[in-house]
Amino acid sequence: MLRDRTLRLQHGNRIEALCVLGTQISTDVYGAAPAGAVSFSLKHTEAVNVEVVTGEQVEVAPGNGGPRWPLDKGTVLRLSMSQASMEVNDNKVTVSYYGEEGGQPIDQAGVFLTGIGISLDVDADRDGVVEKNNPNKATWTWGPDGQGAILLVNCDRESPFIPALDCDDERVFSKEDLLDMSRMVLRTEGPPRLPRGYEIVLYVPLSDADKVGVFYVQNPFFGQRYIHILGRQKLYHTVQYMGGPAELEFFVEGLCFPDDSFPGLVSIHVSLLESLAEGIPHAPIFTDTVVFRVAPWIMTPNTLAPVNVFICSMKDNYLFFKEIKKLADKAGCELKVCYGYMNRGDRWMQDEVEFGYIHAPHKGFPVVLDSPRDRGLKDFPIKKLLGPDFGYVTREPLFEAVTSLDSFGNLEVSPPVTVSGKEYPLGRILIGSSFPTCAGRRMTKVVRDFLYAQQVQSPVELYSDWLTVGHVDEFVTFVPSPDAKRFRMLMASPAACYKLFREKQKEGQGEATMFKGYSGADTKRVTINKVLSNDIMLQQNQYVQRCIDWNRDILKKELGLTESDIIDLPALFKMDKHGKAVAYFPNMVNMIVLSQDLGIPKPFGPIVEGECCLERHVRSLLEPLGLMCNFIDDVSSYHKNLGEVHCGTNVQRRPFSFKWWHVMP
Amino acid sequence: MLRDRTLRLQHGNRIEALCVLGTQISTDVYGAAPAGAVSFSLKHTEAVNVEVVTGEQVEVAPGNGGPRWPLDKGTVLRLSMSQASMEVNDNKVTVSYYGEEGGQPIDQAGVFLTGIGISLDVDADRDGVVEKNNPNKATWTWGPDGQGAILLVNCDRESPFIPALDCDDERVFSKEDLLDMSRMVLRTEGPPRLPRGYEIVLYVPLSDADKVGVFYVQNPFFGQRYIHILGRQKLYHTVQYMGGPAELEFFVEGLCFPDDSFPGLVSIHVSLLESLAEGIPHAPIFTDTVVFRVAPWIMTPNTLAPVNVFICSMKDNYLFFKEIKKLADKAGCELKVCYGYMNRGDRWMQDEVEFGYIHAPHKGFPVVLDSPRDRGLKDFPIKKLLGPDFGYVTREPLFEAVTSLDSFGNLEVSPPVTVSGKEYPLGRILIGSSFPTCAGRRMTKVVRDFLYAQQVQSPVELYSDWLTVGHVDEFVTFVPSPDAKRFRMLMASPAACYKLFREKQKEGQGEATMFKGYSGADTKRVTINKVLSNDIMLQQNQYVQRCIDWNRDILKKELGLTESDIIDLPALFKMDKHGKAVAYFPNMVNMIVLSQDLGIPKPFGPIVEGECCLERHVRSLLEPLGLMCNFIDDVSSYHKNLGEVHCGTNVQRRPFSFKWWHVMP
Repeated sequence: MLRDRTLRLQHGNRIEALCVLGTQISTDVYGAAPAGAVSFSLKHTEAVNVEVVTGEQVEVAPGNGGPRWPLDKGTVLRLSMSQASMEVNDNKVTVSYYGEEGGQPIDQAGVFLTGIGISLDVDADRDGVVEKNNPNKATWTWGPDGQGAILLVNCDRESPFIPALDCDDERVFSKEDLLDMSRMVLRTEGPPRLPRGYEIVLYVPLSDADKVGVFYVQNPFFGQRYIHILGRQKLYHTVQYMGGPAELEFFVEGLCFPDDSFPGLVSIHVSLLESLAEGIPHAPIFTDTVVFRVAPWIMTPNTLAPVNVFICSMKDNYLFFKEIKKLADKAGCELKVCYGYMNRGDRWMQDEVEFGYIHAPHKGFPVVLDSPRDRGLKDFPIKKLLGPDFGYVTREPLFEAVTSLDSFGNLEVSPPVTVSGKEYPLGRILIGSSFPTCAGRRMTKVVRDFLYAQQVQSPVELYSDWLTVGHVDEFVTFVPSPDAKRFRMLMASPAACYKLFREKQKEGQGEATMFKGYSGADTKRVTINKVLSNDIMLQQNQYVQRCIDWNRDILKKELGLTESDIIDLPALFKMDKHGKAVAYFPNMVNMIVLSQDLGIPKPFGPIVEGECCLERHVRSLLEPLGLMCNFIDDVSSYHKNLGEVHCGTNVQRRPFSFKWWHVMP
Repeated sequence: MLRDRTLRLQHGNRIEALCVLGTQISTDVYGAAPAGAVSFSLKHTEAVNVEVVTGEQVEVAPGNGGPRWPLDKGTVLRLSMSQASMEVNDNKVTVSYYGEEGGQPIDQAGVFLTGIGISLDVDADRDGVVEKNNPNKATWTWGPDGQGAILLVNCDRESPFIPALDCDDERVFSKEDLLDMSRMVLRTEGPPRLPRGYEIVLYVPLSDADKVGVFYVQNPFFGQRYIHILGRQKLYHTVQYMGGPAELEFFVEGLCFPDDSFPGLVSIHVSLLESLAEGIPHAPIFTDTVVFRVAPWIMTPNTLAPVNVFICSMKDNYLFFKEIKKLADKAGCELKVCYGYMNRGDRWMQDEVEFGYIHAPHKGFPVVLDSPRDRGLKDFPIKKLLGPDFGYVTREPLFEAVTSLDSFGNLEVSPPVTVSGKEYPLGRILIGSSFPTCAGRRMTKVVRDFLYAQQVQSPVELYSDWLTVGHVDEFVTFVPSPDAKRFRMLMASPAACYKLFREKQKEGQGEATMFKGYSGADTKRVTINKVLSNDIMLQQNQYVQRCIDWNRDILKKELGLTESDIIDLPALFKMDKHGKAVAYFPNMVNMIVLSQDLGIPKPFGPIVEGECCLERHVRSLLEPLGLMCNFIDDVSSYHKNLGEVHCGTNVQRRPFSFKWWHVMP
């Protein structure tokens, strides 16, 4: 940063000034000259560097015995110091003015200088360690060559005795809380005390004050004390200057995530203030700035390894529960159960929460996004998930009504993709919506704004309003694959179902029956022939296929996919009385993905040669990718309530190894 | 824009589809094949182009007599049409499927195609004329190579009978109002009528609806009618499809200027909607988008030629008025007078309004920014300035109290500058403020936000809170110069005054008297010696000099200036009882600049050899630049009320010839 300060000499006087290391002082010799002066000479102490600048020409002035320079309008002295002072005013520059006659000086002007070093330092190169005066600390840039420090929103809760999040108050109770914060060091160097009238102040702009908290660590004899010095009401803090080389250590926390009104950058400044006399305000003579970007909330696609599987324990889902437990064990995951007193009859674990994480060079931890859906499970995230190193964030609309599209079965994320050369190394968020030309449902604005504002998983809006429930997980999912692409996208497909049924009919299996073993007494004898001859069902599924194809086209374009990346899973839908679609048989795409183990809703398709032909078909599509298809009966406890396996579970996954600050959004 | 739509064939059936020119339809031959099919052949009409795509391989299929292709999973047909249809379904593609035995087809599938051309067109290359389907019309870029259409905020008032601005209502009364708007053309081509279930809809996103208005011009036999079809409550409009090649003409106006919550871009879309059957919602099968950027409000620096000079006629300023009239005549400008009934005793014409302009390729006009200061002159802008092709904009704080720093003597703009290689071809806005570390005055947030949001004259905040009145025009101004730099920056300078006085004292003129001829009886005999021996005055002016130097340093850095671009005008200040500064003698930097003619507050400095030595000194600095110094006595009607010539006048100037959309902000 260019640092150039104007100082006015006064002939017949020696003034005093501070010179901050790394900056220069410009003083107008001509303006300070007595009347009749035509030339000048200089003397200065060793630690001061003096240049005589006339227009384009720059000459270094020796400390002693230098020449006489002509006094030109526009002649400027540039002063700088290379080392800090041991005592106040222990350096000086003296200007002697000469008249036309030459000889003795007709007058002199001078300045006593005190050299001070000030640097506000952070980890701008993102290696987990605070540097010394990184020249890039005041600007923030993305990418592998980017620079700029990073803040975490302190949204976990270290102690169970605090009712809220750690960032909600201005107290630090434990060293663990500090570990979530970013370290900032104020380095100073100079004489034992600052001259009278000077002070050093740390401050935040008003616009950043509600975004950041700064704590100072005192180390008294009996244990550390953490003092809140900046943020919220506190806009500035006078720093206690220490003398000699000194370091003051601070810890910085973020208070809120990036959002539509907050791009995510906060700046902290330190200023050296000078006050000339009583009653005259302080003026800043030097300012150093550091910039932080608040780490975004990041979602985890199905291609990341699972850690914990979440499920609700209901009165009626014991068998389903056992199957999920078996699957979780198989995949090496812990099963976390939400019991009746906490789920209060709400079984849709997918819909109330979305698991994500935040990450900085010094620390990372999982963070749950709590949906404004707020049904039976509404206390679960804050009472059972929020804790030490497990954060929490939510967005609630003030006026807008919440709809089914605010449930997080309608919030998913793709694996990493590249689209026409633009890379999305953390994938892209997918949310379901309605067409802009009609007054349909849409995810509530405050949640959408939050998701877009995180920037690193640039969202795509799909069309899901054609479904009764209206979630994207009812027609699309992603599974890992061992090849270069790393994944496949699976889509629900009535066309694939009709194609399969027609093949089976041609093979003479037209009388094969569906729903054998289906719980519930109300399924009539449904055969392949019956389905294929049902014109109304055909027309409805043609409409559904168009809706899904509209999404296929968007996904191909926005995720850079080709047909070979997509696998169609047979599915059939029926329309409710409002013309919205629900699954006719358990919707297989609504599966849980635990690495290679898939928990797929058991479709109860037509039995051909003793086997469900839908299961057989799906195995033939997925097993070549090394995936294991575990079909799970979810009919009575989930499908009949218009959801499936995915809707009734949730998965907390390992974070990306890719660092989000290397993204170029 | 990549346009690729999925369409599903049905074997045994011929479906119907629209194909929009410039897009392609992809259809999965494999998925639509009957069971047992192993190959297929194609037939199609001439206007359809058919490609057979298998993985990476693409083969064009002849309309007739083509080969039999093997039926592979993943084989896709890509269909497109090069010309619009004359009749519905006048083109077709037929797929014949063959079994292993070959011979006759076992089944067929087909699609009747109707080719439709749709293009929403604007003036995206900014030459004043709407193009045909400019490929860059949906994105907006800055710079000489930038593309994207431009909107004007329709903030003038064509008719005196309308109480508000033209953009405040949804009516167009005259052709003149349309001339302010940007032209948009919807071009369509195709059969006489669209097939059943299709419609074309123009729409705006909800977030843009309060930013734009779209009018449709009907030409009935007896004169034109202008109908408001989009904007505010109206989110979409079903367009009447005309058949054959047709053009529908629309006119678009902006409703508000860019601001902190509105970056300035609005988009308008046209969609072709398809509805399969009764009760089934419309789905968009094609969407075309255009983007407009709202033209920013632009200020005019002193280096642009003056057109009109504004002044208030007061009971006590007749002599001043006459001088300004003389100066305006000399400079070839019209003098516009605001009389007592309208100024209501408020003489500070500089403070209530700032003259600027807006500009689009098709039109431009002046726009006045009305300060929230709202003293005696508060009705003047809206009652006397707003009119045909003279626009109006204001920003009023909801809660924040207005201070003196909200007067527009505190809002100026520099001439064009280049700063370390970054160009500001329209200069930079300058606003006075306080230091962030103390609770001083600052321009109210809504006005600051507005100024920053215009983007093309990137503001710089200076320090003016040290003054009683607190306006930047009390210490800085700009004058044109004939050399390559094009301007000089003038700054008030106590140091220059002390230097001059000391020179005069040395020359033996210490008893030269100030304030000779000063109106008002209370000036004691003030000589150079008296001023130089007044230690308190010296100390106060040293403090003032530091405040001004702080601004000098910011201006040098932010405008890329060197010392040779700056001229110091002698000035002296005194402190009020709150420690704020006012001018001790009329403050010469507060001048009116009318090309080479300057109207400078007459300083009443020490008379040396029959001439005011301050006037003589200033002439010697400015006349070499070709500038004419006209010293104007403003003591009784302005200086005594803490303002000067600049504060009591205002100038409307010619706009820049440089096009703001060529800026790279």
